[in-house]
Amino acid sequence: MSKPKGFEKPAGVRDYLPRAVSKLRAIERNVLECMERWGYRQIMTPTMEYYDTVGVASSTSDQKLFKLLNNRGTTLVLRGDMTAPIARVVSSLLKEEPLPLRLSYHANVFRAIEEEAGREAEFFQTGLELVGDDSPEADAEVVALAIASLQAAGVSSFKIAMGHVGFLNGLFEEVIPGRTDEQEGLKELLLKRDVVGYRAAIGRLDIEQDHLSKLESILRLRGGKGVCEQAEALSTAPGALSSISHLCKVWEVLEAYGVAEQVLIDLTMIGDFSYYTGMTFEGYAGEIGSPVCSGGRYDNLLQQFGRDIPATGFALKTNRIVDGIEGIQAPVRLPILIRYDESGRKEAFEKAAQLRSAGNIVVTRLIGGGELSEEPFVEEQSYEAIYTYKPGASALGPR
Amino acid sequence: MSKPKGFEKPAGVRDYLPRAVSKLRAIERNVLECMERWGYRQIMTPTMEYYDTVGVASSTSDQKLFKLLNNRGTTLVLRGDMTAPIARVVSSLLKEEPLPLRLSYHANVFRAIEEEAGREAEFFQTGLELVGDDSPEADAEVVALAIASLQAAGVSSFKIAMGHVGFLNGLFEEVIPGRTDEQEGLKELLLKRDVVGYRAAIGRLDIEQDHLSKLESILRLRGGKGVCEQAEALSTAPGALSSISHLCKVWEVLEAYGVAEQVLIDLTMIGDFSYYTGMTFEGYAGEIGSPVCSGGRYDNLLQQFGRDIPATGFALKTNRIVDGIEGIQAPVRLPILIRYDESGRKEAFEKAAQLRSAGNIVVTRLIGGGELSEEPFVEEQSYEAIYTYKPGASALGPR
Repeated sequence: MSKPKGFEKPAGVRDYLPRAVSKLRAIERNVLECMERWGYRQIMTPTMEYYDTVGVASSTSDQKLFKLLNNRGTTLVLRGDMTAPIARVVSSLLKEEPLPLRLSYHANVFRAIEEEAGREAEFFQTGLELVGDDSPEADAEVVALAIASLQAAGVSSFKIAMGHVGFLNGLFEEVIPGRTDEQEGLKELLLKRDVVGYRAAIGRLDIEQDHLSKLESILRLRGGKGVCEQAEALSTAPGALSSISHLCKVWEVLEAYGVAEQVLIDLTMIGDFSYYTGMTFEGYAGEIGSPVCSGGRYDNLLQQFGRDIPATGFALKTNRIVDGIEGIQAPVRLPILIRYDESGRKEAFEKAAQLRSAGNIVVTRLIGGGELSEEPFVEEQSYEAIYTYKPGASALGPR
Repeated sequence: MSKPKGFEKPAGVRDYLPRAVSKLRAIERNVLECMERWGYRQIMTPTMEYYDTVGVASSTSDQKLFKLLNNRGTTLVLRGDMTAPIARVVSSLLKEEPLPLRLSYHANVFRAIEEEAGREAEFFQTGLELVGDDSPEADAEVVALAIASLQAAGVSSFKIAMGHVGFLNGLFEEVIPGRTDEQEGLKELLLKRDVVGYRAAIGRLDIEQDHLSKLESILRLRGGKGVCEQAEALSTAPGALSSISHLCKVWEVLEAYGVAEQVLIDLTMIGDFSYYTGMTFEGYAGEIGSPVCSGGRYDNLLQQFGRDIPATGFALKTNRIVDGIEGIQAPVRLPILIRYDESGRKEAFEKAAQLRSAGNIVVTRLIGGGELSEEPFVEEQSYEAIYTYKPGASALGPR
């Protein structure tokens, strides 16, 4: 391409002007505070990681990772998610901490390729990880806290779709054993929510009618606890049955949290991260086409960093919430303007300090001061109040 | 180098564990709130910028910029500071906003080469820019707000050293006219605070004694308003005189702010950023060897982005404050632990929700739940209180 113009920025990244920052910051603060009240402590990790460690372990596919070389010629990546970096920290600096560990984060993450499709190359995620607890209680805590976090972010109307990777794996292995490519193909279609494609693909499998109807019926298995019971009849594979049993228990705990109404069991839900091993979920808000959060259990990721312990977690897709949800609107606060001439300067600054101490926003301006700010037209509606300090002018109070 | 181990991260970057995050976040929040009360609105820009625009305009030298290629083969940089990106935004998205513009930020910035010296390759700056006002009032506002920001960050004992690039340029041009390399060499020595080297270098200049003693005397010109008057006698160059006159006016305004006691005029101060054109300053805290903030006027930077307006600003070196200053210590808040068995689950969750609504931190734990968390030893001192919900156990209240 030709040399970029002075005011241009790279495709896929954005500037946040003050109003957008207020909203993003309000969501960040509210969600992190919510997570803190559930015992999650915030951690931060570097923007850059080694490709060979965090890059390889990341859920982000290789071609979507932003790569760069450091001055020793080692390949680095800009982090594609926070789960792999946190797994690294849990396996090193936090190795001696008692389990379970509850960790939260708000961070920008990067995707190399999506800029071409007009998607974002840098965006924010606000999320958490619950490490060292493989119980249904832990999965339910994460789902319940995802619901609380969405509410804290100002998302009022949403549903959580919850599934289990182990159920699909067990069922596929029972019905089309060893046919790994075809199994992966079916999961790919479900991930894309391509129901038509999935129906066509199972039709081409050349399997008995009973098996075919099992594969077909999972498309209709959506709902509450009844789905678990129906699913138990679908497969005799131990992996599928233990997965369903786990999911039923998660549901029971969600009932105790009083949030089951917001959750829908959907056995076609497999989650978009390759490292998920168990329960997975996504959150859908009425106003937005794509998920506003996603999460799940990943019991094999930490062993890549030398620590073989289970974990579960989720992340809000914070930018989608900022852009798509009215929800939180940070109030626009107008400043107080204090105008002064040189003789009134000291008094003006004292007034400003006093008003700031009381929490007000105050800007000061020398009357006739500065080449470029030579007493511009004062737009009264831009200020909460205007004070003037100069000889003869009694200090004008707030309008 | 050999392949990095799983738990390794690149040199020069760091993980922030919860306690460090609390401190960093407290400083970030306090300083941004302080700036907001002075009318500064927060903006955010992308981590990546074009090398040919922001990279070239940046104060960070070319070899210290982290460069990477996007998938179109265009060179990008990881931002080395926030001043150049903000100049880009002021020249594009904020083009129509009335001047002066007051903008604040808290952001991570990057240096490619410093990792080799054990310095940080990624660190935080919290700062502001006042755009479109070339008056001494504007420079003084920025210095006064730097003082208020350091106080908000918990730095109790510090001094601001303030100089003016224009004075040195004028004096050098008067004494050794046209000898640009030698002028630059002297400035380089002053920047490094190498007094011995500076004395030796002016001794080699082969100039008359009167001029030599002028160059020598600036080393002793440190102090209050008197320094301005002494400096006026040092040079007859119009540039030097107008610079000193500007600096005297800044001092007067700082007196009106009531902060002149914390400021020291130091005419050897030239600031480490190549784009400074006028007043420059640095803040030194007793406990820390290197500056905790730096700032100054840069009236020629914005024209590189197509908008020819003056600006002044500063940034706190936030990491140095986090690491070097006791100051702010976020209080350690212990969680309340709620233990329950299955029969007490619902009641336990209701209690947890109620305590969280009241602002408490609450973690819940199923007694005997989870393979890895099978009723570990409960360290009572890790919790503010412990409640137990199971048959026969009356719910134990806070200790």
